[in-house]
Amino acid sequence: MGTRRAVLGGIGAGLAASALPAWAQGRRKLGYAIVGLGNYATNQIMPRIKDCEFAELRALVSGTPAKLEQFGGQYGIPKTHRYSYQDYDRIRDNPDIDLVYVVLPNSMHAEYSIRASQAGKHVLCEKPMAVSAAECEAMIAAARKANRKLMIGYRCHFEPYNLHAVDLVKSGFVGRPTLITAEHGFYAQAGQWRLSRPFSGGGSLMDIGIYSLNAARYLAGEEPVQISAMESTDKRDPRFETVEDRIDWQMRFPSGLIANCVSSYSSGHNAYRVTGTKGWVGMEPATPYEGHKMWTRANGQTSAVELLPPAKNQFVGQLDHLAESVLTGMPLRASGEEGLRDMRLIEAIYRSAREGRAITLA
Amino acid sequence: MGTRRAVLGGIGAGLAASALPAWAQGRRKLGYAIVGLGNYATNQIMPRIKDCEFAELRALVSGTPAKLEQFGGQYGIPKTHRYSYQDYDRIRDNPDIDLVYVVLPNSMHAEYSIRASQAGKHVLCEKPMAVSAAECEAMIAAARKANRKLMIGYRCHFEPYNLHAVDLVKSGFVGRPTLITAEHGFYAQAGQWRLSRPFSGGGSLMDIGIYSLNAARYLAGEEPVQISAMESTDKRDPRFETVEDRIDWQMRFPSGLIANCVSSYSSGHNAYRVTGTKGWVGMEPATPYEGHKMWTRANGQTSAVELLPPAKNQFVGQLDHLAESVLTGMPLRASGEEGLRDMRLIEAIYRSAREGRAITLA
Repeated sequence: MGTRRAVLGGIGAGLAASALPAWAQGRRKLGYAIVGLGNYATNQIMPRIKDCEFAELRALVSGTPAKLEQFGGQYGIPKTHRYSYQDYDRIRDNPDIDLVYVVLPNSMHAEYSIRASQAGKHVLCEKPMAVSAAECEAMIAAARKANRKLMIGYRCHFEPYNLHAVDLVKSGFVGRPTLITAEHGFYAQAGQWRLSRPFSGGGSLMDIGIYSLNAARYLAGEEPVQISAMESTDKRDPRFETVEDRIDWQMRFPSGLIANCVSSYSSGHNAYRVTGTKGWVGMEPATPYEGHKMWTRANGQTSAVELLPPAKNQFVGQLDHLAESVLTGMPLRASGEEGLRDMRLIEAIYRSAREGRAITLA
Repeated sequence: MGTRRAVLGGIGAGLAASALPAWAQGRRKLGYAIVGLGNYATNQIMPRIKDCEFAELRALVSGTPAKLEQFGGQYGIPKTHRYSYQDYDRIRDNPDIDLVYVVLPNSMHAEYSIRASQAGKHVLCEKPMAVSAAECEAMIAAARKANRKLMIGYRCHFEPYNLHAVDLVKSGFVGRPTLITAEHGFYAQAGQWRLSRPFSGGGSLMDIGIYSLNAARYLAGEEPVQISAMESTDKRDPRFETVEDRIDWQMRFPSGLIANCVSSYSSGHNAYRVTGTKGWVGMEPATPYEGHKMWTRANGQTSAVELLPPAKNQFVGQLDHLAESVLTGMPLRASGEEGLRDMRLIEAIYRSAREGRAITLA
């Protein structure tokens, strides 16, 4: 179990304030290229890069010339730093680009991450890391071969309430953890790429259920050894012609801890709780962009917990983390291996639901 | 599904104020014999019988002469109405006893319910109804043969918050229900009969998990068609030499609704929530003796719900219900068939966990 805990490593570790070595202080910021100018990239990521300590926005990649024009103008990106998917590989020749953030539909993650690695760039790739474990392994191999970093966009690993929940569990606040519940879902509107398997690689599990999965793992601080899943999808609903609606699953961990996880495209869920022999810690919402609410229970008393605003919010923290890791050599908190672990479990969840049996994990 | 809903029948139905026919008004109350003078009987049940409209305490059955002496004196029960287990069958000859409430360890439920039926008495038996579906069937057969009623002590079927939650779900308040979570558990102290299989027939599932099971069913308003379960018991813990600690399970219902249920002897849980396409209704604690707390969520707003105190609390409501049903002939809200349904599901939960596969229900 010691080893299993150790491999999670990242989350909760390295929370101390930046310890940039003297040589790096005053150094120019590293430059991000954003690949894919969809809603998440343009509304959540790009407006926040300006708040980074170690990175700035330097290039854009999109298949839509009008978007390159619009956002290139808005963010002052010169035409030489705007790329189509056809000339994407030319980023290799642009020394202003150090980091590539892949914010494309899931099925394009592997290709565009690998091409970025091959172009000699460090990669931040949105979750899910890809649409299969095999793709994840290829991405890791490409980054390793290029001797470049590969990080996955698990923003909650940089969010103070989530980190505090991890700390509380680790500290023994809840006693010996016995149960984790982790629930994520929203009503998916028709007509989005997330509902088309060729783009998404799967349904709610790939998109939102992965938050339940990843949270269960970082809250547990160990890796599951058994998974049992149950799917519920109304195939008459045109939204679900190619992907699943809901899939809920149980995971057993080496300590005996069980996690009950929820993933839904038909109802709203955003909560988790870790219960142990002494009490519990929970959040609802647990993984929003902002507005986290936390409660703890101990000695028969339920208490609300409020944290001070952090110096960097989760988006900025994540963006800066890759840059800081490149500059200082400090280990990544959410590496490609972390993304691969989730993807292997996602495959086991699908398999368990399909075969109607518990899957024992290697 | 119409039929499946119909078979649940009881809960939520018959909530109107007593409609005792004229012939029954002014009739003497029916008399209860309490079988088993343990903690629950003496602290929760017996003190409340005085508040019943249709029943009163008339006899006691115990294997401990000192308890018969103590509680017989306290409740004014004459020596002629105090029975040992050896002379239990002589209740047949006591016309003051109309109703028998079996509050014994689980493994004794079947025998003492059947002997009560054979003595011509109506039976209220604590849950779990027995320790196997076969025993439940024998109890039902004995009551039917004697033409007497058999009710199971599902007190939550008489508890206003629980009934309101059922009504909210039925009314469409949460939209189409997609997920039920139902969690019950407590830290079981060593040295109780509940931890000894010969008395309990099983661990937390028989004792406290049955609340998660029964609540999921009454909240769903339909019967599950598939069950998948995962057990976690530390066999090195001397409490768990013969029974399980924790067992969590998923149930799929015909509508597509999934229930994630928890049962624990190592951590405290008492909550449920029904989430649907429009919102949710939840309680925590959900099934306590008193102090229920309810919340609903709709239109992005979470609201606390407080109900006025009921005319009869859940204990009195349950005790009176059997008496009123005997007096008026109205159908029982929590019959032996209801107890049998839970026991069949309990057997499927154990089987699923043991075999590591989903069980499809007939």
